[in-house]
Parts: sequence; C-alpha cells; structure tokens
Amino acid sequence: MPLWLIFHPDGTFEDDASKEALATDITSYYVNVGLPPFYVTANFIKMSGNTMYVGGKPPAKDKPFVRITVDHIAVTLPDQDSVYERTANRLNDLLKPHIADKGYDWEFHVDQTERRLWRINGVVPPPFKSEEEKKWVKENKAVPY
Amino acid sequence: MPLWLIFHPDGTFEDDASKEALATDITSYYVNVGLPPFYVTANFIKMSGNTMYVGGKPPAKDKPFVRITVDHIAVTLPDQDSVYERTANRLNDLLKPHIADKGYDWEFHVDQTERRLWRINGVVPPPFKSEEEKKWVKENKAVPY
Amino acid sequence: MPLWLIFHPDGTFEDDASKEALATDITSYYVNVGLPPFYVTANFIKMSGNTMYVGGKPPAKDKPFVRITVDHIAVTLPDQDSVYERTANRLNDLLKPHIADKGYDWEFHVDQTERRLWRINGVVPPPFKSEEEKKWVKENKAVPY
Repeated sequence: MPLWLIFHPDGTFEDDASKEALATDITSYYVNVGLPPFYVTANFIKMSGNTMYVGGKPPAKDKPFVRITVDHIAVTLPDQDSVYERTANRLNDLLKPHIADKGYDWEFHVDQTERRLWRINGVVPPPFKSEEEKKWVKENKAVPY
Repeated sequence: MPLWLIFHPDGTFEDDASKEALATDITSYYVNVGLPPFYVTANFIKMSGNTMYVGGKPPAKDKPFVRITVDHIAVTLPDQDSVYERTANRLNDLLKPHIADKGYDWEFHVDQTERRLWRINGVVPPPFKSEEEKKWVKENKAVPY
Repeated sequence: MPLWLIFHPDGTFEDDASKEALATDITSYYVNVGLPPFYVTANFIKMSGNTMYVGGKPPAKDKPFVRITVDHIAVTLPDQDSVYERTANRLNDLLKPHIADKGYDWEFHVDQTERRLWRINGVVPPPFKSEEEKKWVKENKAVPY
C-alpha cells in the first residue's frame, strides 16, 4: 500500500544494509498503525551522474539531496490539521537517522489515492482495522477472505 | 493518458516480447473503452539487485514481486462502488497472463488526476467520447481540431 | 515542491547541458510565480532500449517520445478553467524549445497533492506568498522560522 520511491544520488544508500535499514523503519511505522508488513514497498531509484536537478543545478556532491514520494492508499487521513501534522512529523522522525543524521538534504511529499482502485495479488485488501486485515497482518500475505 | 509504471525485478520482463505483450493488452483495455491507442504509455522500470523492499526485505528471488502504478487522466470514474470494482477487476484480468500466471506476486493502484492539466504535443486532448476524440482514435495521433 | 519526472528515451537529453537547460527553464517558471528556486526538482529518468511502450509499441527511434509527470504541492489551483488553461499553456511554452523544437513527441500531466503532507529538511514549508516564504526565496534554502 504505501509505495515509497526514494530518488537518491550516487554515494547514498550504496550498500544494501543502509537500504534495508530505512525500509525496515518505514515498515515499522505502518505496522504500528496496524497494517501488514508486506503492504510496504520501498523502491530505491538511483539518480546516477547529473540526472537530478534542484533549482536548475545538480546538488553539490558533498551535500546529497534525497527526494522521496509516498503514495498512501489504504487509509485517507481525516481532514484535521493536527492529524496531518502528526503524520508528517512521524515520517520526519523515521527518516532522521537515515537521512538527516547523515547530513543529506531531503524532501518528501505524500499523495493519497483511491482505495477502490487497489489490488494485491488480485484481491481487494480488507478494510482498515477489520478482522480480515488482522489475519493479513498475522499471515503477512494476501489470503482470500 | 494512462501512464503505467511497472517496477519489476531482475528475471522478469527480460525480453522485449514479454514487455510488448503486456503493453499491448494494457492498450487494448483502453481502446475498448474508446480511447486512442497512443494515449497509453507503459514504462518498464527494472529494479535491479536489492533496490526494491517489501516489508523491509527484498522479495525472495524465486517469488518475484511486480509493483504497478497507474495514472488515469482522461476519465475520472463516477463515484459508484460497482464502477470502481469493475474497473479494478478488468485491470486484474488483463494482468493475469503476464504476471499471475507466471507465479509472480503483484500489486497495483490507480491515481486519478486533473484532466485540465494534461497536454499531448501541446494540444488539449478532446473530450471523452467526442467526435474529435474519434478522429484521434482513427489517426492514432494528436491532430489539431 | 514541484517534482518533475522526465521519462526520456536513448538519444534525448544525453548531455548535461540539455538537461540543465530544461531544468533551468522549469525553475524559472516557478520562481516567476514567487516560489524559491530550490523547491524545483527535475529528475531525468532514461528509458533505455525498449522499456517504454506507447500504444503497445516502442516509439520509432527517429521520433522520440518524452513523457513528463509533474507533482504540484505548494499551490492547488483555484477551480477555474481559465487558470488551469493558462497554467498548462505556460508549461507547454517552457517545454517548447527543449522538446517540440527538437521534433520530439511529448505528453505531460500534473497531479496536485496535499500540502500538509510535505516537508523539506524536516520543516513545514511556509505559506504561499508569506513573508517567511520570501525569506526562503532570498536564502534559497529551508531556514527555520
């Protein structure tokens, strides 16, 4: 469900351990909300050489810039500023050790899309917080229901 | 118009024939709805090595995972559950021989975006089901109108 | 804020100068609207070989096709057709020397996403046209406020 695209330059997330560490923390965030781990996909897209431009220039090599996009599908947040703020802050917190603490610049934004146009292995994912969803959490895969 | 991004791991869609076969079936779906074939773009983005993480781990090599995102622009579906269900089911059906039948895991979601911020070769695409659109279907390219 | 993804085939945007020229014109568009230059990210994603299909076929090698997606976050346009038309026309204009005048085919669409789920370097970007935003323009970076 959440799909994270992590556009990162050469010299960042070069080893699998650093990618897995971030992907694991992203996953934990959603698992804490109650979602199955396998909902969470994180794609690391390396922007090699001068393929990423910020303000018309490639970022300085000693100041990497990581641009992240997130699609949220399972849950559309209620229209309350405090809920949006808390969500964005938590995403900030999970990114901190992987990006901010390494001295990178970064930006993220989240899009919320239509749940009814979403399928996993051909199956309609069960409603948020339903008994069926809890079974998907437990099995950590899409099981018929 | 529909833009399909197909994030796929090593070992899947390696030959052009398999990509073209899926792209052709995707195109047929939209042509059946009445849209011009050239509206349909399918981008195959290979996620080589360990660049895709699901639930914090790279999927098992013997169980490839294909993640698909779709942008719909020409037509926003009417707000009826049955229409959404039918649409998602048809996308499932077209994917089946290319993904499910090969034993891959997969997930897709569709975003619907603003038609008024869409241009092809600088031209405003004609209204859905209009005479002008039929001309675009026939010519299979963006012709002034 | 605006995130541009430019999916382009072999033989287009091969040299850094052509990428930087387009990225610079994209940036100028948003700076003219009042936004800080560093808000503008343009990612050039090369679709090598036969990885991009239009209407089920790879575009002819002598007629490159460039597919562009744009995410707008800082500003959601007011719901007036004239505003949408003017915006899309201006994007057309800025693309012209980089794409149309080179004989490429192209298509773009813009998605507008939720401002409240957007952060730069962990900071909430200041409101559009605010004094704080003007400071971000002047400094061309995310400064606490």
